[in-house]
Amino acid sequence: MTNNINIGVIGYGYWGPNLVRNFAEIPGAKVKTVSDFKPELLAKAQARYPNIQVTTHCRDIFADPKIDAVAIATPVSTHFDLAMAALQAGKHVLVEKPITVSSEQAMRLIEEAEKRNLVLMVDHTFVYTGAVRKMHDLVATNVLGDIYYYDSVRVNLGLFQHDVNVLWDLAVHDLSIMDYVLPSKPYAVSATGISHVPGEPENIAYLTLFFDGNLIAHIHVNWLAPVKVRRTLIGGSQRMIVYDDLEPSEKVKIYDKGITVNGNSEKVYQMLIGYRAGDMWAPHLDMTEALRTEGLHFINCIEKGDRPITDGEAGLWVVRILEAATQSMKQHGRLVELNLAEVAA
Amino acid sequence: MTNNINIGVIGYGYWGPNLVRNFAEIPGAKVKTVSDFKPELLAKAQARYPNIQVTTHCRDIFADPKIDAVAIATPVSTHFDLAMAALQAGKHVLVEKPITVSSEQAMRLIEEAEKRNLVLMVDHTFVYTGAVRKMHDLVATNVLGDIYYYDSVRVNLGLFQHDVNVLWDLAVHDLSIMDYVLPSKPYAVSATGISHVPGEPENIAYLTLFFDGNLIAHIHVNWLAPVKVRRTLIGGSQRMIVYDDLEPSEKVKIYDKGITVNGNSEKVYQMLIGYRAGDMWAPHLDMTEALRTEGLHFINCIEKGDRPITDGEAGLWVVRILEAATQSMKQHGRLVELNLAEVAA
Amino acid sequence: MTNNINIGVIGYGYWGPNLVRNFAEIPGAKVKTVSDFKPELLAKAQARYPNIQVTTHCRDIFADPKIDAVAIATPVSTHFDLAMAALQAGKHVLVEKPITVSSEQAMRLIEEAEKRNLVLMVDHTFVYTGAVRKMHDLVATNVLGDIYYYDSVRVNLGLFQHDVNVLWDLAVHDLSIMDYVLPSKPYAVSATGISHVPGEPENIAYLTLFFDGNLIAHIHVNWLAPVKVRRTLIGGSQRMIVYDDLEPSEKVKIYDKGITVNGNSEKVYQMLIGYRAGDMWAPHLDMTEALRTEGLHFINCIEKGDRPITDGEAGLWVVRILEAATQSMKQHGRLVELNLAEVAA
Amino acid sequence: MTNNINIGVIGYGYWGPNLVRNFAEIPGAKVKTVSDFKPELLAKAQARYPNIQVTTHCRDIFADPKIDAVAIATPVSTHFDLAMAALQAGKHVLVEKPITVSSEQAMRLIEEAEKRNLVLMVDHTFVYTGAVRKMHDLVATNVLGDIYYYDSVRVNLGLFQHDVNVLWDLAVHDLSIMDYVLPSKPYAVSATGISHVPGEPENIAYLTLFFDGNLIAHIHVNWLAPVKVRRTLIGGSQRMIVYDDLEPSEKVKIYDKGITVNGNSEKVYQMLIGYRAGDMWAPHLDMTEALRTEGLHFINCIEKGDRPITDGEAGLWVVRILEAATQSMKQHGRLVELNLAEVAA
Repeated sequence: MTNNINIGVIGYGYWGPNLVRNFAEIPGAKVKTVSDFKPELLAKAQARYPNIQVTTHCRDIFADPKIDAVAIATPVSTHFDLAMAALQAGKHVLVEKPITVSSEQAMRLIEEAEKRNLVLMVDHTFVYTGAVRKMHDLVATNVLGDIYYYDSVRVNLGLFQHDVNVLWDLAVHDLSIMDYVLPSKPYAVSATGISHVPGEPENIAYLTLFFDGNLIAHIHVNWLAPVKVRRTLIGGSQRMIVYDDLEPSEKVKIYDKGITVNGNSEKVYQMLIGYRAGDMWAPHLDMTEALRTEGLHFINCIEKGDRPITDGEAGLWVVRILEAATQSMKQHGRLVELNLAEVAA
Repeated sequence: MTNNINIGVIGYGYWGPNLVRNFAEIPGAKVKTVSDFKPELLAKAQARYPNIQVTTHCRDIFADPKIDAVAIATPVSTHFDLAMAALQAGKHVLVEKPITVSSEQAMRLIEEAEKRNLVLMVDHTFVYTGAVRKMHDLVATNVLGDIYYYDSVRVNLGLFQHDVNVLWDLAVHDLSIMDYVLPSKPYAVSATGISHVPGEPENIAYLTLFFDGNLIAHIHVNWLAPVKVRRTLIGGSQRMIVYDDLEPSEKVKIYDKGITVNGNSEKVYQMLIGYRAGDMWAPHLDMTEALRTEGLHFINCIEKGDRPITDGEAGLWVVRILEAATQSMKQHGRLVELNLAEVAA
Repeated sequence: MTNNINIGVIGYGYWGPNLVRNFAEIPGAKVKTVSDFKPELLAKAQARYPNIQVTTHCRDIFADPKIDAVAIATPVSTHFDLAMAALQAGKHVLVEKPITVSSEQAMRLIEEAEKRNLVLMVDHTFVYTGAVRKMHDLVATNVLGDIYYYDSVRVNLGLFQHDVNVLWDLAVHDLSIMDYVLPSKPYAVSATGISHVPGEPENIAYLTLFFDGNLIAHIHVNWLAPVKVRRTLIGGSQRMIVYDDLEPSEKVKIYDKGITVNGNSEKVYQMLIGYRAGDMWAPHLDMTEALRTEGLHFINCIEKGDRPITDGEAGLWVVRILEAATQSMKQHGRLVELNLAEVAA
Repeated sequence: MTNNINIGVIGYGYWGPNLVRNFAEIPGAKVKTVSDFKPELLAKAQARYPNIQVTTHCRDIFADPKIDAVAIATPVSTHFDLAMAALQAGKHVLVEKPITVSSEQAMRLIEEAEKRNLVLMVDHTFVYTGAVRKMHDLVATNVLGDIYYYDSVRVNLGLFQHDVNVLWDLAVHDLSIMDYVLPSKPYAVSATGISHVPGEPENIAYLTLFFDGNLIAHIHVNWLAPVKVRRTLIGGSQRMIVYDDLEPSEKVKIYDKGITVNGNSEKVYQMLIGYRAGDMWAPHLDMTEALRTEGLHFINCIEKGDRPITDGEAGLWVVRILEAATQSMKQHGRLVELNLAEVAA
């Protein structure tokens, strides 16, 4: 514990205080400096954490040789410049989701981090919740059997964003969860949506993701819903999950239900499809705050030189889907392929 | 009431008994004959209604000059032939949804009925529920303001159909409700889906419907869900609806919520979008069984020569959308236009 | 199966048709005669079951030597006379709950049945549901550990009865369930309640049941509630149950939760009480209609000479508690003891 | 606003930080000093609010002539001594609920405050929520008609208290809400309960409150429940309320339901009791944090010399009921009268 990782946090608006609060309590980490261009936000940080330095110039963070890592919680349009400057200054980077506004930018950050042997991690917060980690384990240990579908609804009466459509604001959560939980990656997308305010980005969107084999995924996001819904269904050949993030405790329910196909019938239309309905089970979940788990993971990756679960590639992949989905949405659902080869290369 | 409308019911499987039970209790109607090719089903009908004639030959119904109207509750593939024969025999027709397996067939039935001045009605049952009629009234009287979206989820662990995909089985309900509730018709669709049983039709489908102006609609149907969901959101500029058909009493909730756009801002990114959050209200609904309301309407249309709410055109329109959606689904979401001109002609 | 048990059903009002329908479908049983003093109800029975005899005189049932058993579904004030007459005519008896209007009457029926070696069974329907049988098994196999409490809420906007208070109408269900599920019997009760209609019996009641040892039970019943609630909590030292009868499928949920008491502390106020929070589990339940299971059990008891689960003693015990509770309620919660000795005698 | 009310806060454990945070943001109030006997808690207060003085001696607060008012957030056993010392030092007092451990103590505080013309207010927090204020208004403006019953369930897996039974910990909330919402006061109580840990106070309790006229109230509290429930039903002759504090937004639902009694019938058993079922309505609620509303009210009462809504009498009344209920519970539900005359005197 003598060699703390010193962290600089850029941005003390909505999310920055959560980063500071968690890193302040994580063993092995120390928040050394907070920067924001609004002095009134820095005053808040100072009042709460008298021992943390504050500055309106983020270059003070880059220039400080005692700072090992930078956490970036600023608008997405600034992510690339700030993350690149941090990497070039030799700092490990944890950056808000989505990683960048384009896959091209994300690839450049990945390249820079690899060249310099630095940790590049994206703050895909949900991946570090007990609920999502439990679902990942259930899929990985084949409890669900073959995965048939992933269906998510994330709607509420929410703040209309001016610079990005609702996919970049809300679906980014589902895509980051899917990237962690599902066993394979989609090859193409089809998206539809609408804007209800002239000149503004889409506030409702529907996104289908196509996978090889038996799997399909769909995400419904909406800033203009009368009720808040955060519900995901995951269907498998053996079991199915209902994940409701608004449930206070039983967020993940596993249903021992499904179909049984008797393929021995001679003709297709005589095929017998029976039903199984068994127990439901809601496992106890680790309720540790996700950002604490995530912060510990970031520190651990820096110390051990490990690759984070939500690394630059994960961030890139999410951005690539968001780009393709936005393009498909403009063309009323036209199929847009994801360039797997390019990603793999 | 002395001159009862005599009715012949064809098909006494799942839905036929409901038709017979309701028509048996409707003033002005009388079930004269029930036909089914399975004698054991006719025995049930006979036991329950000793005064009703039964026959294994539906032509006995067509040939009976005392029968005024025919209700058809048979598999969809037989609808066209049976309805056409009934019309040609001079009988009014009430036919199960969907009206036919193709829009071409539906158009021929419409033409025949018009030529003969007979009532042709489709059994879009939900249209006759208290909940859907209330929503229709709320939209028609502008309580919601401009309609922004219609979003429906209809999923459960259900019987896999061999001859039609899940859209024809489940989305048909949503399309018939939309046809009645929404103020305009879609001009194109984009659909995606998947089959999890080789050689069988799609068991999951997502359907987006595009409308002129500010409106979009989406339907999610699934035979392979661990939980049953029947939930529709209707967003308007003034108010929004949550319609949950599984709620025992408060099925329709109206939220006085929405956004307020201040369009006077000079630049797009300065546009102010504020929120309103007001009361919620669940109106008391007429709980009369839908089929009774529907049966009364059918009898009334016959007596007065009126056009039913769910006439052949409504049935045609639903089938046209199902055809387009099936086509789009095969092509991974490609936009398929609905030929409005052709329909209008 | 050649020797069917012939059954006479007395009363064809609300519950009688359910009895007839179930006995009509149970192998080994045959409904021979239905009696009711209202001819229009008999006409309904006749129309539906042409092979069943009907009569306005229940003595025709008692006098029929081919009738083996009688099911009584009439107002509770008539139970004693009808059941006694049936027993004296040598018929086995299944009688609606509550068995009689007084424990004295119940004891006389028990005596008569024993003297004649006839089956006397009370229609405590809930005992034969999959949910209650599952809870019985969970308690019996010690899955819950020591039982700490049983708490039930059964409220709705219901029909006000004129002849009995709300305990006799609604709490009778909870008492019959408790009699089957709990490992011991209460020794005393304290009840409170109120009537909101002058001269009418209490329409709200609260009943506490005291048991030896660590167990307490409480029942809240109300005919004047704005929402319907059917919820029971059963707390145990190892696990706890939430039983919600309005849930369509997961009616019984088992929580692996509780307290851990560290009794080694020297002083009471230093005693450590910790918490356990584990998985939740909803077992798949047998969804067979309770009345079918119950009917099969009745037939089986007749054939084998077995004592039914819900025998006369069970019925007596429930009535005894209802009597004591009514008495306590009149005296604003005064403790009224249940005469265990008298029961045991 | 130049003359701020200076406040000293005693106790910085669980609730104290909420008091400090709210008073720190209320116009017209200033937190001058915080005392706690644990230095580590004072360090937290200091770090967060560098301008607030801290002390381990609460007498420093009493001795400070610049402090106008004292907020007490310490264990209930210390309330009397601290509040009395504050009053005797001429400070206005806001004290945690319950006001004291006995009604005798509460009366002495009331007397002292009146003698010195000081504000004595109890922190009955729920009274200042938007939900409870709305219910108060609905009752006060006769929207519900005559009040028939008040029924509350407040259960969860909670911390077992060593010094007080579950009524003093949980029912105190319901009693304070009832005191504010209901139009009259109870004249007697009957309570039952049980302790599941030897030597510890009761962890489950049922409390019936008797009122003159048509009204009854009941409270169910439990520290050992598998699920958290916070639900209150209020029945009136015209409308009924369901208040669910766990609902994120629609906490108060008003049902236009009830019974209609036709009293003209000649005989009691012919009396007709019909049902009304109308709309349900969930009014938008003020979501201001209750403690802020309460703090503003406290400051306002000090400035204007007004009597607070939750004054010493309200605190006394709640304690008097808790005393009577505890006594009744020890005697298995024996009716214990509340000495109204004594209170009124």
